[in-house]
Amino acid sequence: MKKNLTRADCAAWLASRDRYCILTHRKPDGDAIGSAAALCLGLRAMGKTAHVVENPEITDNFRPLLTGLTCTEAYTGATVISVDMAAETMFPAAFSNLKDKVELCIDHHGSNSFYARESLVDAAAAACGEIIFDLLNLLKVPMNREMAEAIYTAVSTDTGCFRFSNTTAKTLRTAAACMDAGADTYTINQKLFETRRLARLKLDAYMAENTELLAEGKIALCRIPLEVEQGLGVTEDDMDNVCSFVRNIEGVELAVTFRTDISGGTKMSVRSAPGYDASAVCAKLGGGGHKAAAGARIKAPQQQARDKMVEALNELGYL
Amino acid sequence: MKKNLTRADCAAWLASRDRYCILTHRKPDGDAIGSAAALCLGLRAMGKTAHVVENPEITDNFRPLLTGLTCTEAYTGATVISVDMAAETMFPAAFSNLKDKVELCIDHHGSNSFYARESLVDAAAAACGEIIFDLLNLLKVPMNREMAEAIYTAVSTDTGCFRFSNTTAKTLRTAAACMDAGADTYTINQKLFETRRLARLKLDAYMAENTELLAEGKIALCRIPLEVEQGLGVTEDDMDNVCSFVRNIEGVELAVTFRTDISGGTKMSVRSAPGYDASAVCAKLGGGGHKAAAGARIKAPQQQARDKMVEALNELGYL
Repeated sequence: MKKNLTRADCAAWLASRDRYCILTHRKPDGDAIGSAAALCLGLRAMGKTAHVVENPEITDNFRPLLTGLTCTEAYTGATVISVDMAAETMFPAAFSNLKDKVELCIDHHGSNSFYARESLVDAAAAACGEIIFDLLNLLKVPMNREMAEAIYTAVSTDTGCFRFSNTTAKTLRTAAACMDAGADTYTINQKLFETRRLARLKLDAYMAENTELLAEGKIALCRIPLEVEQGLGVTEDDMDNVCSFVRNIEGVELAVTFRTDISGGTKMSVRSAPGYDASAVCAKLGGGGHKAAAGARIKAPQQQARDKMVEALNELGYL
Repeated sequence: MKKNLTRADCAAWLASRDRYCILTHRKPDGDAIGSAAALCLGLRAMGKTAHVVENPEITDNFRPLLTGLTCTEAYTGATVISVDMAAETMFPAAFSNLKDKVELCIDHHGSNSFYARESLVDAAAAACGEIIFDLLNLLKVPMNREMAEAIYTAVSTDTGCFRFSNTTAKTLRTAAACMDAGADTYTINQKLFETRRLARLKLDAYMAENTELLAEGKIALCRIPLEVEQGLGVTEDDMDNVCSFVRNIEGVELAVTFRTDISGGTKMSVRSAPGYDASAVCAKLGGGGHKAAAGARIKAPQQQARDKMVEALNELGYL
């Protein structure tokens, strides 16, 4: 069992060191970038030298949060910190050489592998940004608008703008404190949660029109041919949550989406309501996951995959 | 200038009376029903007799909040209160006879006409439910789960689940207090914000495929023929926010939707980003509204309405 720092210990640790380089994970999301930006700004406000190491996988949505904060690589003798990064497998290739150099990891994943010399892991936090917010308070850093917008981005993105089941009263109060500190949350919400790419809307349109409803509309199967994805010009980002989209159709309790992978096989995603076991469904097809969200892959085209899925659903008494 | 009660005065007023009948407005929304339910539960917790008068226009989404709380009509000599109801024009026909019998109106619309004998109007509140929450605190009513779910429904629906510009830090803290009191906010969020009717999804599909983009994609015009609405079986509820849907397409800064009204004329809705004036556009067509949201109606079929709209947009230099 690895040692887990308290927030107070962690704050003292941060106060006693300097020359910080902050690392974020592969495909960095709003929580990773928001946490890194807020921590970097907070450390600088304390008079420390701090940078976020450039992550080549950052997307346009979050890049502005790091304006003026990045360095191209960790400096010699830097105090290396990782945020929101559960395991060494999450390191971007660009800084895989730093895997054994992380002095402190701040994270909210229960699965954290405690790869860093010191760790503060709190799985009860909806976002890593909630922990950073607490640390900045303990360090008596006055929260400015820039920090507040970084923290708000972190907590809102990791909770689907306060809709997911990980949202707590503390999450909402952290967001309230960000508003008090001047965060323009309306503009952030519009950009991150309300704006939709036309290609994705057309994919939604396709799915709404091409979903096969079984069991009186409780089970929904949606095959998305590769030609459709290519024709609409959707990106991998656009494909985020396609199965949840189908699952959210009124009356649907279990949804399956089928996509063709590069090898010509079929990738299935399953999302389900309480009373169904998505992982049991996927286990029958060689896959796995959680009760509400699971996946499987088979070496067969979509039509055959659909038939095997119907068989699995039948065997479990879902049809 | 009509007298506006303070929250403390209003709480004292509520504590000193009894036999309450609570009224909600035409097409009652989550804020109206949530506010009425929470107030009724709070008054009952204080030992008062209280009912919410049945509103025939209530929808299935919100009806469960009033289980066990309704009466078919106001009792003789009742203390009549209205919540979230800005003006006498908002009375449902079913209780238009009570227009001059309202002893107290609790509301958050700046446009409130002060039709009641006493009023507590706070336009800074994102939802009427925020005011009810404050009153119950002042009255020292212990918040239980039922009240908390009613208040949460009120504040979340009137702020688009904390995304609209009316959301304040206080709104988020009110929602946090509801979670502390045991509200199952996840289930409420799923039901109110994540579930979508198939008919509406198909309408979204139609709009995504049939939007005319002008000015390099900044202006979007979408005509929705009556046959399309009828063919998809969409309800008036489903038509909510159709113009916002078009406005939220990436790159779009001003969106117009066209619908055919019962008289065969065309109803236009305009939503726009900062830098555009939706009300100026609609004023050119005999309509009006706000800078970001406006509407107009003309006695002509959709194609002609579209041409006149393009003319108006041209005159304002938007095309």
